[in-house]
Amino acid sequence: MPAASTIDLNADLGEGFGVWRLGDDDAMLDLVTSANIACGFHAGDAATLARTCRAAAERRVRIGAQVSYRDLAGFGRRFIDVPADELTADVIYQIGALQALAGVAGSTVSYIKPHGALYNSIVSHREQARAVAEAVHAVSPELPVLGTAGSVFFAEAQRLGLRTVPEAFADRAYRPDGTLVSRREPSAVLSDVAEISERVASLVEHGQITAVDGSTIPIAVESICVHGDSPGAVRIANAVRERLTAGGVRLAPFS
Amino acid sequence: MPAASTIDLNADLGEGFGVWRLGDDDAMLDLVTSANIACGFHAGDAATLARTCRAAAERRVRIGAQVSYRDLAGFGRRFIDVPADELTADVIYQIGALQALAGVAGSTVSYIKPHGALYNSIVSHREQARAVAEAVHAVSPELPVLGTAGSVFFAEAQRLGLRTVPEAFADRAYRPDGTLVSRREPSAVLSDVAEISERVASLVEHGQITAVDGSTIPIAVESICVHGDSPGAVRIANAVRERLTAGGVRLAPFS
Amino acid sequence: MPAASTIDLNADLGEGFGVWRLGDDDAMLDLVTSANIACGFHAGDAATLARTCRAAAERRVRIGAQVSYRDLAGFGRRFIDVPADELTADVIYQIGALQALAGVAGSTVSYIKPHGALYNSIVSHREQARAVAEAVHAVSPELPVLGTAGSVFFAEAQRLGLRTVPEAFADRAYRPDGTLVSRREPSAVLSDVAEISERVASLVEHGQITAVDGSTIPIAVESICVHGDSPGAVRIANAVRERLTAGGVRLAPFS
Amino acid sequence: MPAASTIDLNADLGEGFGVWRLGDDDAMLDLVTSANIACGFHAGDAATLARTCRAAAERRVRIGAQVSYRDLAGFGRRFIDVPADELTADVIYQIGALQALAGVAGSTVSYIKPHGALYNSIVSHREQARAVAEAVHAVSPELPVLGTAGSVFFAEAQRLGLRTVPEAFADRAYRPDGTLVSRREPSAVLSDVAEISERVASLVEHGQITAVDGSTIPIAVESICVHGDSPGAVRIANAVRERLTAGGVRLAPFS
Repeated sequence: MPAASTIDLNADLGEGFGVWRLGDDDAMLDLVTSANIACGFHAGDAATLARTCRAAAERRVRIGAQVSYRDLAGFGRRFIDVPADELTADVIYQIGALQALAGVAGSTVSYIKPHGALYNSIVSHREQARAVAEAVHAVSPELPVLGTAGSVFFAEAQRLGLRTVPEAFADRAYRPDGTLVSRREPSAVLSDVAEISERVASLVEHGQITAVDGSTIPIAVESICVHGDSPGAVRIANAVRERLTAGGVRLAPFS
Repeated sequence: MPAASTIDLNADLGEGFGVWRLGDDDAMLDLVTSANIACGFHAGDAATLARTCRAAAERRVRIGAQVSYRDLAGFGRRFIDVPADELTADVIYQIGALQALAGVAGSTVSYIKPHGALYNSIVSHREQARAVAEAVHAVSPELPVLGTAGSVFFAEAQRLGLRTVPEAFADRAYRPDGTLVSRREPSAVLSDVAEISERVASLVEHGQITAVDGSTIPIAVESICVHGDSPGAVRIANAVRERLTAGGVRLAPFS
Repeated sequence: MPAASTIDLNADLGEGFGVWRLGDDDAMLDLVTSANIACGFHAGDAATLARTCRAAAERRVRIGAQVSYRDLAGFGRRFIDVPADELTADVIYQIGALQALAGVAGSTVSYIKPHGALYNSIVSHREQARAVAEAVHAVSPELPVLGTAGSVFFAEAQRLGLRTVPEAFADRAYRPDGTLVSRREPSAVLSDVAEISERVASLVEHGQITAVDGSTIPIAVESICVHGDSPGAVRIANAVRERLTAGGVRLAPFS
Repeated sequence: MPAASTIDLNADLGEGFGVWRLGDDDAMLDLVTSANIACGFHAGDAATLARTCRAAAERRVRIGAQVSYRDLAGFGRRFIDVPADELTADVIYQIGALQALAGVAGSTVSYIKPHGALYNSIVSHREQARAVAEAVHAVSPELPVLGTAGSVFFAEAQRLGLRTVPEAFADRAYRPDGTLVSRREPSAVLSDVAEISERVASLVEHGQITAVDGSTIPIAVESICVHGDSPGAVRIANAVRERLTAGGVRLAPFS
């Protein structure tokens, strides 16, 4: 598994709503190279999204549309059994809304990343995976999708000719088969900043990661997702960034 | 006031939400030349909007974005004191969402028409008028706006170089000064199909209309709005269309 | 299986939202003995609900709270994977809201009936069934729940000491085991008014119904659900009512 | 103007929504005697409200329903021109929802306080003031309303026989006529903790306050509102509480 000399760092941003804020978007935008900006369905009133697009554009951070189930009360974290045609329309709607806001900010929507329960669902839910892939393709066949290697979503996206960009999660534990340890298990989320940084460095420099059972597994990614909404988010993102650049890795948007 | 040999007929469409329907969109799309399609803030879940865009595109009816206050419960008919920056962002968001849906349907958003209380507010509310005009201009300086001649909205739009397209309402009574009789007065809305048809014909062929006091006033418009959601909507639109074509007027989108 | 000499007729009402209407509530209220009134989560802005409560109270039709997932865009017809504590709170919130509106109308909430996807889910989804039962019990242990005999929801409700009231659907086909034929099968929904009336009469007078395979199965219910939102809803409800009263059955709220 | 030996301290609480939080509710609940809990229209999903009601009930802090315009995106801070019958229904709905949640928590809704733009509007907007007063009266003529002395809302409430409880704002500047300095003026909001504490003490102990022009004006209140959502909220509430108890004032819910 060849190591990467450049890597993309992505984070979820623009996830406030009205008076409510989530995370420190400005600080995160100084650290990441790609911003997954909410589109109003799980978070993000238009004014918040406009502000986030402007802040990303000013820093030349690339903008992606973080599309979601329509679920403000659940922050898009609850599976919804949306029929395919409704889901396709919902995703097109969200991408278009963010395209306009990004355009006004002098930028553009460069990729799509599903959010929360939708992200998890389409790892295996064929009908919804296809519905999302078809929405992206219908808006533009040139839009890459960010997600999990080996997912049904990637299979559906590739079938339509979309470019798929695999990512890993900086602060999540992996099973020996390369899938994530469920959040319901206590060991699912890592919080030690040094450990997270080393894991990411190993991933980027050597294309491998240590699984929960201690085995070393190969994993090829083009982007690392750092979370933006946890208390230590900025600190973790900063440590990951410093460790990578210290190791000679260049941080840049995926090509 | 010169008479027009061609005129545009516009109606509000796509105004259902989820299971709920409003009016007979398919029948109206066979009659009008411009469809003001809702954008999700006062009506229109994404699947409804996608369907309406496809139906308009199939009939080569031009699509406009009917932007609104965020108010599903009030159908956008209640004034909301939205600060300018929020309103601008809301309008950009809505236009973008419909642009994507129209694009997927093989069409495009060709103009903007504010809806309901927002339409009424920006006849005189300077700050909101400017906020809407700036939103349209930011998305594209080429997008015309449909509205009321003499409104503050038109003044603000023209200041930014936007093309303004004046319209008249087929079924509304006018005051001698060219403004609408308030809906709170019993004579505000006309329902007699023959009377409505004759008034529209006079408007289009002679550039004048009879005001509530019996006086004849000049009024120059490039589009006629027929309502799509009243019980007799289709019958009225049909009668207007027949009367105009019988008089040699060609129905076509405004240029 | 003993036959009933009195039976309750229930229908879903108050299912408009803002300008949108669904079905002919006034006509249905003249026919049913129990009104399952929406609570704002899948349908029903407060003004619509207030109006429906008044109309029910005037006709002395009993009011039930038709609780739902929070999903206006999907009309509560899409399963949502809501955690138990959120679902319990959502149900309590909805019951309370309708209690206040019913109280102001001079009536009261006399029972609870889950709506749509929630109704279907808790036939078998233990965690959500328990969450709904606990919400009802927490508001009042005296509130009966309307649902399907043999469901996990009924088991959980009974465990808490709630009274469970089994219902049958007038226009649905049944399997030999007493469960409903899935809506995805073409034979699931009956539309012939005479056939529906006879089936309901057999159900009420003889405690049995003919399943899709032609076999006769026993089924004991205390209420018949007639749908309120289909085109023929009023006609079907009327025919069912006439057939039952012609056969000497008295229509009255379940005790 | 006689001084009070006991005073009520109220704050707005339960104003998160889903994942979003606002202020430190637990810390504020240790300081106030009355909690104005949101009802879901400007803030407060049901689970958040249930949790807040339980936390208030555990500390024996009295619960009031903080009713609002339906406006999550604007946090209820934008005037909405809601017709009276809709507003009345909206307020009844909100009170009922919170009554159920408070009841399940072992407490009850003891008073009503309008929120944000609705609070400000009904100081002078007769139709909306009456709509809110009628809603409260319809739910229960025994429910007191918290608000501003001299407001149209208080006049309408008193006309219906409702008890009106006047409050002052700890951190707001007053005009010589007893009204608040507009938030658009720089001097509107005070932030110096010592100054705020002294003003509140003067208000409670001597029934007077120093206006912006330096004059001393009489002002009789039964409750002091401390804000719960600003960064220094807890510190201010704590200082006010300590200053008052040091001066021999007992903090207790208004009778």
